[in-house]
Amino acid sequence: MKVAMVGSGALGLYYGALLQKGGHEVHFLLRSDYEAIMNNGLTVHSVNGDFHLPAVSGHTSPETIGGVDLVVVGLKTFANDSLHTLIKPLLAEHTGILTLQNGLGNEEYLADLFGSERIMGGVAFLCSNRGEPGHVHHLAAGRIIIGEYLKCNEQRLEDIAAAFTSAGIDCKTAGDLKKVRWEKLVWNIPFNGLSALLFQSVDRLLQVPECRKLVRELMVEVIMAANSQELSHAIPEKYADSMLEFTDGMGVYKPSMLIDREEGRELEIQAIFRAPLEYGRQHAVSMPRIEMLTALLEQVATR
Amino acid sequence: MKVAMVGSGALGLYYGALLQKGGHEVHFLLRSDYEAIMNNGLTVHSVNGDFHLPAVSGHTSPETIGGVDLVVVGLKTFANDSLHTLIKPLLAEHTGILTLQNGLGNEEYLADLFGSERIMGGVAFLCSNRGEPGHVHHLAAGRIIIGEYLKCNEQRLEDIAAAFTSAGIDCKTAGDLKKVRWEKLVWNIPFNGLSALLFQSVDRLLQVPECRKLVRELMVEVIMAANSQELSHAIPEKYADSMLEFTDGMGVYKPSMLIDREEGRELEIQAIFRAPLEYGRQHAVSMPRIEMLTALLEQVATR
Repeated sequence: MKVAMVGSGALGLYYGALLQKGGHEVHFLLRSDYEAIMNNGLTVHSVNGDFHLPAVSGHTSPETIGGVDLVVVGLKTFANDSLHTLIKPLLAEHTGILTLQNGLGNEEYLADLFGSERIMGGVAFLCSNRGEPGHVHHLAAGRIIIGEYLKCNEQRLEDIAAAFTSAGIDCKTAGDLKKVRWEKLVWNIPFNGLSALLFQSVDRLLQVPECRKLVRELMVEVIMAANSQELSHAIPEKYADSMLEFTDGMGVYKPSMLIDREEGRELEIQAIFRAPLEYGRQHAVSMPRIEMLTALLEQVATR
Repeated sequence: MKVAMVGSGALGLYYGALLQKGGHEVHFLLRSDYEAIMNNGLTVHSVNGDFHLPAVSGHTSPETIGGVDLVVVGLKTFANDSLHTLIKPLLAEHTGILTLQNGLGNEEYLADLFGSERIMGGVAFLCSNRGEPGHVHHLAAGRIIIGEYLKCNEQRLEDIAAAFTSAGIDCKTAGDLKKVRWEKLVWNIPFNGLSALLFQSVDRLLQVPECRKLVRELMVEVIMAANSQELSHAIPEKYADSMLEFTDGMGVYKPSMLIDREEGRELEIQAIFRAPLEYGRQHAVSMPRIEMLTALLEQVATR
């Protein structure tokens, strides 16, 4: 399978490296890491075992990659404006586009640009960070759950999942991509939001009882909004408790939005906060805490 | 009138200086400013005109002051534990105690220690900051509204208001001290809380429409809680709009809690947040945003 990784951050580099190690023809669209990777290759420091890829096909523009079987999108959502330019040269007639980006609205955005039938989406439960140029650190987890944007091509989805799995990626398919996206938001909204706002890792947020209670209240607001969206199955409130327990096991993990803020990058407020708020509002769901967290994040982001 | 200022921060120094300038016998209980004030006196830099008091009666313990007519309490509420020790030596049979501290619960606390009939309370609408030791900066406003804790001694209250007024302090009396305290909280809860949380002055909070909206929503939650407390008159929702306009005129003002946080002091979370929340909860008032702001402040305070 010829694959293009668009957005080669901690997520794109990690999954791309596994796919290449698994025998696929992987092309990375690179920016800041280009020189380092072309000179020294790509090194993955992983809880599952370190490995090094001495020869990597890196590119600074998509034209040199050409048509591929699969585009994997890992770009930060605040850079979505550039997706048309970055993906257009990668499209052959049969090319599928899989977005693993955060939040809501990414499949819709790509479908408007390139047609719904090409689009798949997924959520990654991956704890990874970039190290020095050419190095990526995989700290924990790594599962991907993928689904079709429209339910038109289940065979393609199963083929991709099988390819990912054979490359050592923990990959499942889901019939209801929307539900999977909302379930991820149950984690992303409290933990990305509060950690970025307060400059605190997830363990700190869960230590103080009042803040742990707030995390759960935010989760319940997400669940209420999710369950207004005609999902295949409702998300039970106890899903919040399982997410709290899951996160207790993560230790001093810093969510991506905290790292974005620490490094002075833009925050993914639109995809992770504004879009879910808008979907909830359309069904008159009350989300005062998510609204407040969003306002506070925008207030610090415009600092 | 012999007056003891207990808690000589920006508020105590400013009002004490005016009372001394107005001819009263004022004794200041001092800590960090003691040396500077004993050596060089007290300087007030005020929008109403600067003045200097070369000789000030400063004390490091209340025993050297002895019994007074009036104790004015300006101590930070997180130091309330020390009030028994600080005030006890100042009490003669007729001594009144006027607390100008922030938030709720201070009259009750003092009444438990020294008897209800001694206690008066008040709120100060004062923009002032401490400068270098021995200097206080009065930036704007300055009105005090005072009331009896029990309605047992209205004449005493009028006498004190007259003494304050003749010393150049803008002082009014109120029959319903509880209402005055809650009205002050309509300002204190959003502006002290958000400014301390975000390290932003009040003008910044009002610039971005989403945050201005949040400020107003917090104010409305305070008003709802206030109106559950059997006040003499309900506070109308439009009081929030008048507070927003009032604050628009304050410019780059930093509320006391922001300065407390910048200087690494404890935050007055109990008096300004926890106590009002508890009063509201007793009447089943929903205050999700105030609860969330309180949790966030506690989270950064325990950092």
